[in-house]
Amino acid sequence: MSEAVMSDTVQRQALAEELDSFNCRVAQPTDGPLFTRDPQSAMKAAHWKASDLERLLTKIGAKLKLEAGGQRRTLRLANRGLPFGTTPTIWASIQYILPGEIATAHRHTASALRFIMKGRGADTIVDGERYEMNEGDLVLTPAWTWHDHEHKGDEPMIWLDVLDISLVRSMHATFFEGSDVPRQAVSDIPDRSYRHYGSGLMRPLNDTSRPALNPLLVYSAERAQEALRLAAALPPDPFDDTALEYLNPLTGDSALPTIGTALQSLRPGMHTKAHRHTGSVVYYVMRGQGATIVDGTTFEWGAGDFMSIPPWAVHEHVNRSYDTPAMLFQVNDFPALKKLGLYREEAA
Amino acid sequence: MSEAVMSDTVQRQALAEELDSFNCRVAQPTDGPLFTRDPQSAMKAAHWKASDLERLLTKIGAKLKLEAGGQRRTLRLANRGLPFGTTPTIWASIQYILPGEIATAHRHTASALRFIMKGRGADTIVDGERYEMNEGDLVLTPAWTWHDHEHKGDEPMIWLDVLDISLVRSMHATFFEGSDVPRQAVSDIPDRSYRHYGSGLMRPLNDTSRPALNPLLVYSAERAQEALRLAAALPPDPFDDTALEYLNPLTGDSALPTIGTALQSLRPGMHTKAHRHTGSVVYYVMRGQGATIVDGTTFEWGAGDFMSIPPWAVHEHVNRSYDTPAMLFQVNDFPALKKLGLYREEAA
Amino acid sequence: MSEAVMSDTVQRQALAEELDSFNCRVAQPTDGPLFTRDPQSAMKAAHWKASDLERLLTKIGAKLKLEAGGQRRTLRLANRGLPFGTTPTIWASIQYILPGEIATAHRHTASALRFIMKGRGADTIVDGERYEMNEGDLVLTPAWTWHDHEHKGDEPMIWLDVLDISLVRSMHATFFEGSDVPRQAVSDIPDRSYRHYGSGLMRPLNDTSRPALNPLLVYSAERAQEALRLAAALPPDPFDDTALEYLNPLTGDSALPTIGTALQSLRPGMHTKAHRHTGSVVYYVMRGQGATIVDGTTFEWGAGDFMSIPPWAVHEHVNRSYDTPAMLFQVNDFPALKKLGLYREEAA
Amino acid sequence: MSEAVMSDTVQRQALAEELDSFNCRVAQPTDGPLFTRDPQSAMKAAHWKASDLERLLTKIGAKLKLEAGGQRRTLRLANRGLPFGTTPTIWASIQYILPGEIATAHRHTASALRFIMKGRGADTIVDGERYEMNEGDLVLTPAWTWHDHEHKGDEPMIWLDVLDISLVRSMHATFFEGSDVPRQAVSDIPDRSYRHYGSGLMRPLNDTSRPALNPLLVYSAERAQEALRLAAALPPDPFDDTALEYLNPLTGDSALPTIGTALQSLRPGMHTKAHRHTGSVVYYVMRGQGATIVDGTTFEWGAGDFMSIPPWAVHEHVNRSYDTPAMLFQVNDFPALKKLGLYREEAA
Repeated sequence: MSEAVMSDTVQRQALAEELDSFNCRVAQPTDGPLFTRDPQSAMKAAHWKASDLERLLTKIGAKLKLEAGGQRRTLRLANRGLPFGTTPTIWASIQYILPGEIATAHRHTASALRFIMKGRGADTIVDGERYEMNEGDLVLTPAWTWHDHEHKGDEPMIWLDVLDISLVRSMHATFFEGSDVPRQAVSDIPDRSYRHYGSGLMRPLNDTSRPALNPLLVYSAERAQEALRLAAALPPDPFDDTALEYLNPLTGDSALPTIGTALQSLRPGMHTKAHRHTGSVVYYVMRGQGATIVDGTTFEWGAGDFMSIPPWAVHEHVNRSYDTPAMLFQVNDFPALKKLGLYREEAA
Repeated sequence: MSEAVMSDTVQRQALAEELDSFNCRVAQPTDGPLFTRDPQSAMKAAHWKASDLERLLTKIGAKLKLEAGGQRRTLRLANRGLPFGTTPTIWASIQYILPGEIATAHRHTASALRFIMKGRGADTIVDGERYEMNEGDLVLTPAWTWHDHEHKGDEPMIWLDVLDISLVRSMHATFFEGSDVPRQAVSDIPDRSYRHYGSGLMRPLNDTSRPALNPLLVYSAERAQEALRLAAALPPDPFDDTALEYLNPLTGDSALPTIGTALQSLRPGMHTKAHRHTGSVVYYVMRGQGATIVDGTTFEWGAGDFMSIPPWAVHEHVNRSYDTPAMLFQVNDFPALKKLGLYREEAA
Repeated sequence: MSEAVMSDTVQRQALAEELDSFNCRVAQPTDGPLFTRDPQSAMKAAHWKASDLERLLTKIGAKLKLEAGGQRRTLRLANRGLPFGTTPTIWASIQYILPGEIATAHRHTASALRFIMKGRGADTIVDGERYEMNEGDLVLTPAWTWHDHEHKGDEPMIWLDVLDISLVRSMHATFFEGSDVPRQAVSDIPDRSYRHYGSGLMRPLNDTSRPALNPLLVYSAERAQEALRLAAALPPDPFDDTALEYLNPLTGDSALPTIGTALQSLRPGMHTKAHRHTGSVVYYVMRGQGATIVDGTTFEWGAGDFMSIPPWAVHEHVNRSYDTPAMLFQVNDFPALKKLGLYREEAA
Repeated sequence: MSEAVMSDTVQRQALAEELDSFNCRVAQPTDGPLFTRDPQSAMKAAHWKASDLERLLTKIGAKLKLEAGGQRRTLRLANRGLPFGTTPTIWASIQYILPGEIATAHRHTASALRFIMKGRGADTIVDGERYEMNEGDLVLTPAWTWHDHEHKGDEPMIWLDVLDISLVRSMHATFFEGSDVPRQAVSDIPDRSYRHYGSGLMRPLNDTSRPALNPLLVYSAERAQEALRLAAALPPDPFDDTALEYLNPLTGDSALPTIGTALQSLRPGMHTKAHRHTGSVVYYVMRGQGATIVDGTTFEWGAGDFMSIPPWAVHEHVNRSYDTPAMLFQVNDFPALKKLGLYREEAA
C-alpha cells in the first residue's frame, strides 16, 4: 500500500466514529465493493432429488400438524447462500396435504401460485371462486386475494407453493390478514373468471374493465400441455428449446406481475447452448431424464427433482434420452426484474 | 322568418360567390346542420335471408369468373343508405370459391378477415404461413400482409370476407400491391404463429418482440366454440347474453386493430334488453332461430342469415326457441371508434 | 376487350338488378377501382393569402351576426375537391369576434382547438376552467368538454378554430349539446389544470388519476416559442427543419387524441427535402417569408397566409429569407391515422 | 405451552438437521414470523442537521481524496436500522467536489440522480451530452448511462447523490463498468435531449422513437420552481400541501423508472394531516423552517437539513413560519413499489 493510500485509509478510519454519531459515514477500505463488475450472487445452485423429497415429505406428513400460524404443512426448499428463501426473491415449498385437511383462509401482499405435482381432489377458493386442482394445473393467488384449500380426495396430495416473500421483504411491504372462518364462502358463480377468460383467446364483448390483476386464476394442465406439444414442433430456442410462459390474457403480461411461470420441453437428445441472465429460476422436472450444467456443476435430474439457478450463473440443459422429450415447469423472477429495468441476458 | 334573420340570410348569400373564389365560405341557411344532437346515420338496417343468398351465390358461381382485378368472386352485402360498403366503415362480402380455384396473392392497407361459413379444404397463406381453413374458423389478414387462397377440396366453399375499406377510404389511406406470382412461397415453418400463440394462454419465454400487429392469424372453430360453451353457463349480459370477443393474446386488444369480431350465443327463450351504441355491426347467424328488433323493425332470422345494424340504432335480440341456443358471429367497428374516443353506448 | 371479358361484363350487368333487390351486388366493370396502388385523394392543395383573408374577415365582421345555431362567426377554409371541410378529416375556420361578443356554451364529440392569431383579452371557459387567450396561445377543447368564449378586449380578435368534424362524420358519431345559459359558471379554481400540469415536466405527487383526456387545456405562446427557440439550435430534420409537436404531459401522446398540432421553424435559407405521408396538414404562417412546393405547385407565402396539403402529396419547404427564421403553426390528423395503423411516410 | 404444541415443537426440531442436509427445512418455533400484519421495517426515522453536515463536509473535503474506486468524495447518509444504505432501497450521499476536481467516468445498473445543493460551475456529461449544473437543478443518470463530472467553478460545490443501490442489490443485479479515460468525449450537440424534450410540453414532430429510458436528463431549478409556484396557489393536498413529481415527458411515468423525485412546498402555517404509505422517503430542506412528526417523534428542521422516513411510518408536516413558505426536495422509491404492485397508503 503506498503512503498516500495509507494516509487516506488512516484519515477515513479516524473519521468513522465522529461520522457515525451523526448517522453518516464515508467509504472505508474494509468495506466490500460498492459495485461489482457483474452480479456476485450469494445464492448457490442447488439440486433436490425426488427420492429424498418423497421420503422427507412422507415423514413430515406423519409427524407434523398443519402449522399453527400460516396453517400450511410445507417442506421449504432452502439455499445455503441465503439467509432465507429459495432464491433472492422467491420462496418455493412443497405443500403436503392429507385427505380431509383444510389450509385455512388468509391473504397477503406476496403473490403466490400453486403447481399441482401429484394427486387430485383438492379444491381451492380464491376470492370466492372455487376450482378443483388436479395434477399439472397452475393456480394463481395474486397479491391480496383471499385463498384457502380443502383436500376432498382420499390420497395425500402434494403441490409446489411459490411466493415472492423475499422480494416483498426487500421492499419492506409485507401485509397479512387471517380470516375468522377457515373457508371462504363460495360465490354464486364458482368459476366465473375461468369461464370468462380461460380460453385465452376471447373475452366478454362488453367487458370494459381493465383489471389491475390478472382475472384468470387457473391454467389447466390439459391446455398448457397441448400448447407445449404444438410449439415443440417448431425449431428450438437455442437456450431453452421449447419454453412457453403463462400469460395474463388481458394484457399479454406475465400471469403474475412479479413471478414468471413457464412450461419447458427438451426434445430427445437436445443439448442447449449455455447462457446467463439476471434473475433466478426454480425448476421442477415433470418427466424425463437429463442434466443441467450450472457454472460448471452438472446436476443429473429425473422426474420429480427440483433445481435452482442463481442470478447470472451460466447454464445449459441436456435431455439424456434419445427418444423421449423431457418436460419441466419453472418459476422465475424475470417479470419483477423487467419492470425495474434490471433484466439482462447474454450467451455464454 | 324575422326580418333580422332574413337580413342575415341575405347577407350570407350575397357573400357566397366572392368567398368561394378564395376557397372560403360561411355557413348558409341552406346548409345541413353542422352538428346533430345524436348520430343521424344514413345507413339503413338490413336483413339478408339464407335462401336468397344461397341462390344468388350458386348463380354467381356458375356465371362469374374470378374477378380480373382483385381475383375474388364475392357477393357484396350492400346498404341502400350508403354510396358503398355494408356499413360506414366495413365491407362484408360472401366469397364463393370452386374446387381448384386460386384467389391470387395481394396485400392492402385495409385490414381483413375471413370467417368460414361452409366447406373445408381451402388453404390460405398469410405472409408465408399456411393454414387450412375449415367451417367456423376465423382467419386474419392484418393490414399489409400478403395473402392468397387455394381451394383444394372438392365442393364449393363459402366464407365471409370483411374489410375496413370504407374506413381506410375516409382517411384517404388506400394502398394496394399485387403479386407477380399467384401464390406465395410457404415458409419452412408453415404455421409458426399458430403454434407459438395459438393457445392464447402462453407465449414463448424468450420472446421479447412486441409485434405491432397481432401475431396470431387463425382462431379455430373448435377453440372458439368451446370458449363460448363455457361462458354460456354464466349469467347473461343484459344486452348480448353471452358474447365473446376474439383478442390479440399479446396485448388483450381486439384481434384486428380496427375491426371487432365476436361469437355470440343466446340461450333458449332469451329476450335481451334494448340498447344502442356508436359503431355498426354485421351479424351472421350460425345456428338457431330468432329475431332482432332494430329501431322498431323486426328481422326474423334463421341459420345462414345476415343482418346489419346502423350506428346508434336501438336493438335487442330474441331467441325464438325454448330449447336450443342460437349462435351468431359478428363483426363491428368498435375498436376503431374506441381508439378515436368516439365509442358510446346507452341502454334504451 | 376480349370475348371472354366481354362475356363476364355482360354477365355481371345482367345480374345487377336482381342482386340489387336483395341488397347485394357484384363488382361491375363500370365501378371505380376497389383499391388503388396508393392514395388518390380528392383533396386539392390550397393556399389562402393573408391580404384576402383580412379583407374577407373585416367584411363578415361588419355584415354577419354570430351564427344562430352554433353561435360563432367563422370564415371556413374550404377545399374544392371535397364536399365539405378543409381536409378529409379536419375543418379549419377563422373565428372573428368583436369586443363584447359571446360565443355561447356548447359541447360536441368533435375535438377542437383554438390557436390565437391576433388580439388579446378574450377569455374562454372549458369545463368550468377559465383562461385568458392571447396571441400565439393554443387552447384545447377535448371531445365533449363544455366551452364558451367572451371577448372582453376592445379590438376585434381572430383565432384559428380547428375541429375533426369530417372524421367524426365518417364514423357517424356526431353528438352535440347546447347549454341553457350563454356562459358556464367558473369553478372556484379557475385554472386548476394549467397550474397542475402546465409545466409539462411535473405533476401532483399524489395524483393517481390517469385521465382519459389530456388534462392540460392551454399551452402558452411564451412557453411554446421558447421550446422552439431551444430546439432550433439543433441540426435540422431533413423534411421539417425544426418542428415540435404539442403533447399530453401525462401520456406523451398528442395533445388531442385525433388532431396533431405543431410549431415549426425554418432557419434562414433552409430548403427542406421533399417527402410525403398519409394524413393531411393545414399550415398557418406566423412570421417570415417562404414557399411550399406541393406536388409541383409552388405556394409563395408570407405572414398570415394559410395552406393545406393533401394526403400523400409530395411537399417541401423553403425559407426565402437569408437572415430571418420563419415560423409556422400546423394542424394535422396524424394521431388519428397512427391510432388506426394507417400512417405512412416516405422520402420523395 | 400445551402438550400438543410442545410435541409439534419437538418434532420440528428433531427434523431440522436431517432436512438441512438436503437443503430443506420446515418452519421452526424459533423462526420469526413468516408474515406480519403490516410492514415492520427495521429502518429508523432519521434527521441530519445542516450545521452538522456542513462541518463534516468541510472536514472530509480537507482530509479525503476522491475515492480510489468510485472516484467520488461523498458523505453517506446512513441508517442505524439497516446494514447499509439510507432506506431499504436508496443510498443518499452528499457529494463534495473541489474546484478543478474530476469525478471520473463510469456507469452502473443502479439508477442515479444529482440534486444541486450549493454552488455553480460544475458540468456533467451523461452519455456524451454535457450540462452545466447549478443550484436547484435535478440531473439524471438513468441506468447504464456513462457519466462523469468536472468542477470548473472556483468554490467548493455540493450536491445530493441518490442511487437505488440497495434495490439493485436485493435483486442481485449489480453491474459496473469504469472508463479508460477520466472524461467522456462530448457529442457534437452537447445538450440535444434538453433542447428536444426540455419544455415538457412538446417533442420533435417526426420523433417516432419511444426510448426505453427518459430522454430528458436535466430539469432546471428555474422551471421546477416556477411550476411549484403556480401549483402552490391551488388548494392543498391534505398530506403534502403542494408536491410536484418530476416526470418523463414522453410517457408521464416518473423521471427515473425506480426512484421518485418531487419538489414540495408548505404554505405558511400549514399543518398537514398524517398518513402512511409503503416506500421510503429522503427529504432535503431547501428553505424555510418547520417540523415533521414521524411515528410520534418530532424533527424540527431548517434549511439544509435532511430527514428520512421509513416505510409505513405515520408522518405529517408543519411549516413553523406564518409568513414564509417552506420548500423541500424529496426522493422516494414509490415508482419501484408501484411497478411491483406493492404501493399502499392510508390516512392515519
